[in-house]
Amino acid sequence: MPVRTVVWGENIHENTSALVRSIYPDGMHMTIANALNSDAAIKATTATLQEPEHGLSEARLAGTDVLVWWGHKAHGEVSDAVVERVARRVWEGMGLIVLHSGHFSKIFKRLMGTPCALKWREAGERERLWTINPRHPIASGLDESFVLENEEMYGEQFSVPEPLETVFISWFQGGEVFRSGLTWRRGAGNIFYFRPGHETYPTYHDANIQKVLINAVKWAHNPQGDLKSITDAPNVPVEKAHEPITERGPKLHQPGKAGYR
Amino acid sequence: MPVRTVVWGENIHENTSALVRSIYPDGMHMTIANALNSDAAIKATTATLQEPEHGLSEARLAGTDVLVWWGHKAHGEVSDAVVERVARRVWEGMGLIVLHSGHFSKIFKRLMGTPCALKWREAGERERLWTINPRHPIASGLDESFVLENEEMYGEQFSVPEPLETVFISWFQGGEVFRSGLTWRRGAGNIFYFRPGHETYPTYHDANIQKVLINAVKWAHNPQGDLKSITDAPNVPVEKAHEPITERGPKLHQPGKAGYR
Amino acid sequence: MPVRTVVWGENIHENTSALVRSIYPDGMHMTIANALNSDAAIKATTATLQEPEHGLSEARLAGTDVLVWWGHKAHGEVSDAVVERVARRVWEGMGLIVLHSGHFSKIFKRLMGTPCALKWREAGERERLWTINPRHPIASGLDESFVLENEEMYGEQFSVPEPLETVFISWFQGGEVFRSGLTWRRGAGNIFYFRPGHETYPTYHDANIQKVLINAVKWAHNPQGDLKSITDAPNVPVEKAHEPITERGPKLHQPGKAGYR
Amino acid sequence: MPVRTVVWGENIHENTSALVRSIYPDGMHMTIANALNSDAAIKATTATLQEPEHGLSEARLAGTDVLVWWGHKAHGEVSDAVVERVARRVWEGMGLIVLHSGHFSKIFKRLMGTPCALKWREAGERERLWTINPRHPIASGLDESFVLENEEMYGEQFSVPEPLETVFISWFQGGEVFRSGLTWRRGAGNIFYFRPGHETYPTYHDANIQKVLINAVKWAHNPQGDLKSITDAPNVPVEKAHEPITERGPKLHQPGKAGYR
Repeated sequence: MPVRTVVWGENIHENTSALVRSIYPDGMHMTIANALNSDAAIKATTATLQEPEHGLSEARLAGTDVLVWWGHKAHGEVSDAVVERVARRVWEGMGLIVLHSGHFSKIFKRLMGTPCALKWREAGERERLWTINPRHPIASGLDESFVLENEEMYGEQFSVPEPLETVFISWFQGGEVFRSGLTWRRGAGNIFYFRPGHETYPTYHDANIQKVLINAVKWAHNPQGDLKSITDAPNVPVEKAHEPITERGPKLHQPGKAGYR
Repeated sequence: MPVRTVVWGENIHENTSALVRSIYPDGMHMTIANALNSDAAIKATTATLQEPEHGLSEARLAGTDVLVWWGHKAHGEVSDAVVERVARRVWEGMGLIVLHSGHFSKIFKRLMGTPCALKWREAGERERLWTINPRHPIASGLDESFVLENEEMYGEQFSVPEPLETVFISWFQGGEVFRSGLTWRRGAGNIFYFRPGHETYPTYHDANIQKVLINAVKWAHNPQGDLKSITDAPNVPVEKAHEPITERGPKLHQPGKAGYR
Repeated sequence: MPVRTVVWGENIHENTSALVRSIYPDGMHMTIANALNSDAAIKATTATLQEPEHGLSEARLAGTDVLVWWGHKAHGEVSDAVVERVARRVWEGMGLIVLHSGHFSKIFKRLMGTPCALKWREAGERERLWTINPRHPIASGLDESFVLENEEMYGEQFSVPEPLETVFISWFQGGEVFRSGLTWRRGAGNIFYFRPGHETYPTYHDANIQKVLINAVKWAHNPQGDLKSITDAPNVPVEKAHEPITERGPKLHQPGKAGYR
Repeated sequence: MPVRTVVWGENIHENTSALVRSIYPDGMHMTIANALNSDAAIKATTATLQEPEHGLSEARLAGTDVLVWWGHKAHGEVSDAVVERVARRVWEGMGLIVLHSGHFSKIFKRLMGTPCALKWREAGERERLWTINPRHPIASGLDESFVLENEEMYGEQFSVPEPLETVFISWFQGGEVFRSGLTWRRGAGNIFYFRPGHETYPTYHDANIQKVLINAVKWAHNPQGDLKSITDAPNVPVEKAHEPITERGPKLHQPGKAGYR
């Protein structure tokens, strides 16, 4: 069964900027989804900010293996309820791939627990991405480095938690560096942040970028079923202890009561 | 200069439960603060839920190097504004030590970005803590293992991010295990979670526990000054690039404008 | 194509101890290989200490995706040349699964760079393994905990590098704990250490243990081809620099010379 | 008491190259030691390849808190016995700082368990080091980036284990990036690799570099005493188990016998 993937797009600049529309006439989300669908192991659809519940209803998310997120101008317009819903699905095992300006999205900051800030410069300068972890599944089929001739610069400090693994580091023409490909696991969910993708450049039409996205979706997919219990805090009664024990000492909680949260 | 430490206590069961009051007549926070103050390198004071702004005003936090947090019954009563204030101070470099039932505190969940859930059983069973990282600063002066004869059980899965280092793992009489001492860094702030400390047992009077708390405060202290810029996302103009570059291609942002957040 | 797996067995106690032979009449390696072969996605064969080159010739290893290692009594008899050969293959991308007393094997110590020491007691006591990272591929299909009624105890400190992820932690009847399932990546190779497997107990006949081994082989397999360049230290000449630069200042190395090693 | 530090220098190019001697007339090790001694909290002496036991006798190492290592041309001439001695001291708690071409030293490869390979180019190009972990103790007092106008290039992949923390990443004029400051813990010992320091440039006279070295020595120092037991694998007899257990089942080892290694 292919990896059921939803590409979420903010879908604003595609409609308000003639420039962005000229590069992504069907929207960035559609370009990304089409690239993912070029691999038979993936079945990608799209969702946008403007749809009811931003296209991310409980039912939709329940049938989603991996969510890809691109947002920039309207992070604040994403409903907190949807953000919590997505976070919970990630903890249960849904993969999440956060792209470029999505570093400041509510969902990424929610899952990282840090500011996720960085430096930036919009000058169309050259970016060279180095694969520092060759044979990582996300780097499959890539050369040791590849170039995007025009990109927005992002510079360190990128205030995120120390990652599980660093896959890519970018070199910028103006003198900065950036950890452009980072992985984390949160609950049962795999998370990948991938830096490139400023909307005024044709980044998502680039063959290397598309390869990374396809690899990342496959890597993020956790085929083992949802860990619905991830937020539970069950009481284990004395009589169900694995080893026989006798209750001793005073206690606060009455039998059968849930704990405090 | 001693490490300026604030011990935050929920301060409810000490006032509503005769049992808890009998163990901690001045409040758990006071017992902990007194233990910390037995070391001349620490200057500990206290704050409680009931004080204005829970005792954690901007000014108070600005003069705090390390915050110790114990809460259980009333996590929901902690104001979201104070939680955000504390989170920002941690990112800037304030140390944070979260105790026992504080695993479900708003501030811990905020900084971890995960459910922070676990199993539990209140049966006064035996807990043996193993130091799995000897010579870690937090384990200074401890034996390879030590016992709390009566404690609440916490069992895995503990749904937190993979830690920087695991310092302690607990063995429980009823058959469970738990990663009882874990470290993380978030922004410039050091975070330590320490499991023991159920309010119906005299855990914070235990000499080994007090040693861990003193060690942890010293470890969490970042003496290098606040990283006030941790949440900034500065634009680096083309003319200030480290290497000379020429602006190329189209752009979204007008000169001098801040980015989207 | 199935994962080409070699199960390496020391194959001594099976021949010198009637007890061990009674449990593993065809050798422990054969029991493990048979278990792996019960999954169609794996094709497991065996190799033993007594074969020429311990059964691990260059050619054999070149066709091996994952190596499983069990040794105990005769670590010192394994040839250093074979150890280096295996290490190189791991860096190039071959998976390695080290079992039980293999913690003191030359190959494991070589790849960890630490003593890999631990406590032990051979008393047939009860071991309970807790899955602390549910939905990790290696924990697929397991309950949150499972029991081995008789096992050798291993206790912390286990002097290995901080792992990439901790998958299992064991509880022992006698009061110890142990990180029983740990992952690392070294070069392009995935490494998994799995604690159970003392030769005087029928551990490798246990269904849960067999499930872990099958999962681990699949997880360790890196399908992306060998990273033959992992030990290279290539000079990048000035004229092949990605960005045009001019050689400046003095230098030690003459053009075309290799660096020092 | 100041941190007892030994700066180990290969001390060859200083004697065979007029150029290197002109930059480091007393040897690179002496320049580094003098820089460290500018901080009253450090007491640095030197040792060189040419001394008996390379200046690293058992007695000398027993009184050393932190060892700084620079080698390049003669890694192979360092005695294996001394390498094992140093490794053991690191596991026991001695800090180790490996500089520049020391990436290929026997001791670094021994402790990492990986090839430690990288790309290189000796062209005197510009290197800009970015502090990606501000307020890490090793980055104390540094700007967010600083420049070495002439350095040898090192490029990724740097085949070392995923670090505990990444402190610096370098940008090179010719288009490469490199993780220039990485930390690990092995046993009780803290290890820091720091990239700059090619012998044909005056790198160790640079104020920022000297600041990093001073910070690194203080960070690497573990003041808690040697963990002499780090290589022990003690048997815990049944009668000394923490919890009462009865020996069950068959066993291999006779009472009082050591385990196999």
